[in-house]
Formats: sequence, structure tokens, C-alpha cells
Amino acid sequence: MRRGSNQLRLADFNQAVVLDVLRRSPGVSRADLRRVSGLSSQTISNITRRLIDDGLIRETTPGGSARGRPSIPLVIDRDGAFSVGVHIDPARLTTVLLDLDGEVRLQRQQRTPQATNPPEVTATIAASVDSIIDEAGVDRDRVLGLGIATPGPLDVQAGVILDPPQLPNWRNVKLRADLHHATGLPVLLDKDVTAAATAELRSSTDATNAFVFLYLGSGVGASVVLDNQVLRGSTNNIGEVGDIIVDPDAEQLEWTGRRGGLAAACVPEALVIQAAHVGLLPLPNLNDYLAIDDACTALCDLASAGDGGAVRILRRAAGRVAVGLGVLMNLLDVPRVVVGGPLWSRLSESFLRVLPELVTRELVVAREHIVVEGSAVGEHVAAQGAAELVMDHFLAPRASALMVGES
Amino acid sequence: MRRGSNQLRLADFNQAVVLDVLRRSPGVSRADLRRVSGLSSQTISNITRRLIDDGLIRETTPGGSARGRPSIPLVIDRDGAFSVGVHIDPARLTTVLLDLDGEVRLQRQQRTPQATNPPEVTATIAASVDSIIDEAGVDRDRVLGLGIATPGPLDVQAGVILDPPQLPNWRNVKLRADLHHATGLPVLLDKDVTAAATAELRSSTDATNAFVFLYLGSGVGASVVLDNQVLRGSTNNIGEVGDIIVDPDAEQLEWTGRRGGLAAACVPEALVIQAAHVGLLPLPNLNDYLAIDDACTALCDLASAGDGGAVRILRRAAGRVAVGLGVLMNLLDVPRVVVGGPLWSRLSESFLRVLPELVTRELVVAREHIVVEGSAVGEHVAAQGAAELVMDHFLAPRASALMVGES
Repeated sequence: MRRGSNQLRLADFNQAVVLDVLRRSPGVSRADLRRVSGLSSQTISNITRRLIDDGLIRETTPGGSARGRPSIPLVIDRDGAFSVGVHIDPARLTTVLLDLDGEVRLQRQQRTPQATNPPEVTATIAASVDSIIDEAGVDRDRVLGLGIATPGPLDVQAGVILDPPQLPNWRNVKLRADLHHATGLPVLLDKDVTAAATAELRSSTDATNAFVFLYLGSGVGASVVLDNQVLRGSTNNIGEVGDIIVDPDAEQLEWTGRRGGLAAACVPEALVIQAAHVGLLPLPNLNDYLAIDDACTALCDLASAGDGGAVRILRRAAGRVAVGLGVLMNLLDVPRVVVGGPLWSRLSESFLRVLPELVTRELVVAREHIVVEGSAVGEHVAAQGAAELVMDHFLAPRASALMVGES
Repeated sequence: MRRGSNQLRLADFNQAVVLDVLRRSPGVSRADLRRVSGLSSQTISNITRRLIDDGLIRETTPGGSARGRPSIPLVIDRDGAFSVGVHIDPARLTTVLLDLDGEVRLQRQQRTPQATNPPEVTATIAASVDSIIDEAGVDRDRVLGLGIATPGPLDVQAGVILDPPQLPNWRNVKLRADLHHATGLPVLLDKDVTAAATAELRSSTDATNAFVFLYLGSGVGASVVLDNQVLRGSTNNIGEVGDIIVDPDAEQLEWTGRRGGLAAACVPEALVIQAAHVGLLPLPNLNDYLAIDDACTALCDLASAGDGGAVRILRRAAGRVAVGLGVLMNLLDVPRVVVGGPLWSRLSESFLRVLPELVTRELVVAREHIVVEGSAVGEHVAAQGAAELVMDHFLAPRASALMVGES
């Protein structure tokens, strides 16, 4: 086990308050910080000195418009700290490096090898984390921690993956402890949909900041943002929507999911079974997520090329997804849906053409305007969100006990 | 039009702060109020003097344990102000009188006459408001306002009922303005499920204060409470759940609702159609909500008496409702469901016996403990919630523009 090597001093609550103000309002002075925080002049002076010494903030040149002695603007040093976010989808592993300013410095996507073998996935993640830190030329001591976004259900408090339908052999895997052991970094574990909604909310320019995020990957999930808050649910397992019945007349697939459910409508496994049934593709090995993912890509390519059978399958999937979105929008009374996840880029062309109209038909309360759009962040949305959750953990002024391995 | 006669002076924000503290902490002194509110001694003195003059609060006898000059405890005068809440269900009209202490002084339930005729309903409500105020012997000048809970969809801002599936002929009815005209009282309009969740939350002793409220009346609806907050949705129309498919194999009823939907599973109209199909009852006139309600009562009485056909219908309804509750609990990750509304007392015996087990089977994330229970408030829950929303409007320290007719 490597040494937990984080040398940055981040434990202080008042320091977190100051950093939080600087992240949101670059260029404020020490006097501004005193006014906003209510902290004493001496405390602000000590904290800013320490943050400058640690390389987390720096002084910039004053504009000089004020009379008398100019106050010195302070800004975050974007190279002062980093976090790594990893999104484990059974078929795709996405890794991002986020800087203190909230910018993604590097991102990598690779195929998840042997998703059915947790130790191998752990080793792959650790190697990917090393590699992205090395490639960016970042001092490892400046990496605050590692955020992992995974399918649920999870015990977020304990850092344990409970029994995800999309990850066989992952029952009660202590992923947070295992990854802390493998990387030496503090590790935070959260649900893929929660991480994705976190990143999407940050990048959103929509004033209402109320939306449903529909996650399409090897599995399907949802998260909900209301009033600028990402809902989590009472056990942090919000968004299990795969069993929502979206087509009562759906065929019975040779598959474990609920007949006519949202998962059966749109996850790659169900789509490739449908494609194989009508002879579009050979049925892949259904225990092999990579083979399923490849077959799903082939199906989407066929549809893009105009193959009637493939187009019909994706068109039907869009109709069923619209029914599911109708359930969420009718229940929660939100006017906006964001769709993302590793499967999305392959479906967006087929889906975006028809989803807005199909969803509108499902609404009980007539609306003049709804928005159905793809993620503004992109395919790494859940990985970025996981990295942002790590930054928030260390830098936002609040108590939390969800991490292991803090130095 | 009667005179808007409210003589109480309630517009002041600081006064609202003081009243709010006193509602939550009876017996605090003027010095306590200064500390809690941050208001000056002079301001507290003026406000408490005015509130005492208006009869909204009163002084009580100090305990005398403190040394020196004892501070005088202040309490709300429960007779100082009242609000009236009315819940319009197409079959039942419920009216409550709430006092300043949050206690229901009087409640009345009557059959809604001619639900298809809005002016007649308005007249009936106005008469019911007059009657409950008179019967309680309350000074009308002390009635702050009237809260109306109705089926959605609503335009809460405008006080207009838009186009409720359960209330034909109620398209774009300006109910708030009409009732203000008829009663002279300030009027607030809100959705039945939102009002019900508000009252249920107040009476809840559950520490998490996270639950789904399932409303069963002439229609079906839901509301959601998370972290002590009643969710409203972006247009105050949260909780349209009638179209959620709960039984893909459900029969097609001669009815407008979605086949296999939650409404088709449990609203009185659908239940009596099912009962008539198997010869248990003659089919009532489906344009007559009272006849439907009576037939539904007869069906429930048959089930209570052990009639096999009636028991089967209600047992099937419970199974379908469980699927719907599963959708809500899986999506929102809440461990608790409260069921209420005008239909609930007739179904609770059949439903509570089986719902907890049936709901547990629907959960994707295994839980050691879930709660499925009937409303702690009772059948007047939505009316009480509407009255509480009026109290909050006048007495909670926040800006709002949802009422008409404030003096």
C-alpha cells in the first residue's frame, strides 16, 4: 500500500469558507473576504498566507481604480490542487483529471476489461489514475482524492457496492477501501447518476436548474435536480427507473429485466437481443459486456446507414423512453430532460429527432415549452461529476465523513 | 361582493418573524425574541405591543425561578386568528376551521353537489365557509383567509383551475377570484396533494421527514416530501401519477384513462366499472360523481362482508397500487409511504393488510424496513393542509403573491 501522501492542509473549516468564496468570486480582496465571511482580519490574513504558501491561491495585480492603497485581488491557482474522477460502466471506463478551477485537464475512455472481475477492474482503475496523473505532469501530492461513479445500489456511507444488476460478481465489494489501498489516495464513491447530475448542474446555463437527468449506459438510471440541488434519496440510491413499465405490449425478451420495463426498452443488452431476434446481428455472449457494447454499436451504425430494421428498433426504443420520461416529468413537474451516459452518443441522432414530440404527448399538464436535450458535458459527465464531488468534499465548507484515507 | 373585512395588521415582515418564533417556541420572553430575531429592543417592544392589542398573542405568568425582575413569557392566543380550508373532491367537499395554534376547531364533510357545475360548487363552498365560521362563534374579522385544495392541473399563480380530468366543465375556472368575490376573504388555491402533504408533514413524528403521499379520492395523485420540504414542481403541479402503467395485462375498461395505468387501477370510477363487469353492482351513471362514490362504497362494503368478487377486485387494486408505489420509491429512494384522501378509509382495511409486502417486492434496492401507513391526519388532510397554507402565507416571514383580496 502506498503512502497516503496528501500534504495539503485542508482540514480547517474557516479555510474552506475562504476557498469557497474564491472559487465562486475570483479577484476578491482580503477586505472582501472579511466582509463576506465575517471572519476577523487576523484570521483572514493567516488563512490567505497559508493558502498562498500551499499554492492554492495567488495574488494578482490590482486594477488601481480605487483611491488610496489598492487592495490586492486574490484568485484560485488552478494548478494548486486536482482531483481524479472515474466512471465505471460495465463496458466503458472513463477517467478525468480536474483542476482547482473546475476545468477538465485530461480525459480518457477505455474499454472496461473483465467487468465481472472486481479485482481486475480495481487494478485497471489504479493504473488509469497513475497514468492520467503522470501524463498531466501533476505532482501527486496535489491530487486531493479519487471519486468513483458506479451503478447502484451502493452503500455510499460505507463505500461498498451492494448488488448492482449491471455488475455481476460485485456483491458487497468494498471498492472504496480497495481503491484507497491501490492508489494511496482518499477515495469517494457515489452513484453514476448522482455524479452525472452534479456535473451537468455545474455546466448548466438554465436559470431554473430543475431537470431530470436520464442516464443511458450499460444500464439505465435517472437523477433529479430541483432548485439547484441534486436529489440523493434517503440511502443515496436515487433513480432506479429500469422497472418502470413503458410498453405493456412489449415482447418478452430472453432476459432478466422486467417485460416492458424501461431497461428492457433501451439498455444495450436488450437492444441487441431485439436486433438478433430479427436477424440483424448475431447474438453476442450476454455475459460479455464488451461484446454487447460492440453489438450495440453495430446496431446504431446500421440505423445511421438507414437499415430499416435497425431504424425500427431504435425508433421503438425512443418511443418507450418517451413514456418513461413522461412518468418522471408528470410526477415531478419538471420541464427539462437531459440525456447522457456512455450509450447516448450512439443513440442521440435517432432519439433527439423524435423525443421532444413523443415526450410532449405523454404530459398530463400541457406545457408550452419543454426541453429534451443531450448532456452539455458529454460522455465523461459521470467521471467529471465524481471528480467534482471530491473537490466539494475537500473545499466546500461542510462536515462530511464519506471518504477514507484523508491525511 | 362583501367587504374584505380583515382588520388584523399582518403586513409587517418583522412582525411575521416574531409571530413565527412564538408559534414554534411558546413561552419565550421579549429578551428571547430580541436574541433570536436580532431585532432591536424598541422594535420588539412595538411589535409585541401591537400583537397583544390585536389579540394575536398574550402574556402569561412567569415561572419565577429566575432572579431579579422576571421576564414575562409570551404565547400565541389561539383565538387570535383562524383560517378556513376547503378540499374539493368531485364527490366530497371537506371544510375545516383552523386556529392560530394549528388546531382544527371544526370540520365538516358533505357530498359535493353537482361537481360538474362550477358556480354551484362555488356557492356551496361559500355557504360552507359561512356556516363553519358561524357555528364556531368566531369573529369573521379574525379569519385570515380561505385555502382551497383541488385536483390539478392548476395555475396556482393565477388562482385558476386549468383542465382537471376529474372535474369536467372546470376548464380555466377562476376559482380564486370567484371565491374571493363570494366570501370577501383572501383566497389561496393549491393542489390537493400538495395541501395534503403539508398537513401530513406537520403531524409527522418521523424524524427523516421523507415520504411519498399517495392521494386516493375521485382521482389519484402523489406528492413528495424530502428533508422537511414539500416538493411543488416547476408549475406547482407535482404528482400526476395516474398514467403510470402498473399492470401491462390489465383489461381495457370502457373509460378514458390509460389502460393498465394507476388511475385505472384504483379510482372509484374504474373500480365500479370493474365491479359492474362481473355483475357485483349495476353500473352507475358515470357522469355523476356522487353515484360513482356511492357505488364504490357499496363495493367496499361487499368486500368487508367477505364477498369473493369484491375482495378480488380490491386485492387486485392493491397489487396494482403497490407497483405504482414501487415506481415512486425506486425513483426517489424514500422508505416511507403515507396513503390518504377521501377514498382511503374505505380501502385501508383491504390495502394495509397486503401493501407493505407487495411494495417490498417491487423495490430494486433491498431495504430492511419500509413503512406503508394511512394518513395520521385523517380524511380532512387536504382541507387542513389548505388552511395551514393560508396561516403560513400570513404568518410565516416570507414574501408571496399568491393571494387575492388581502386587506
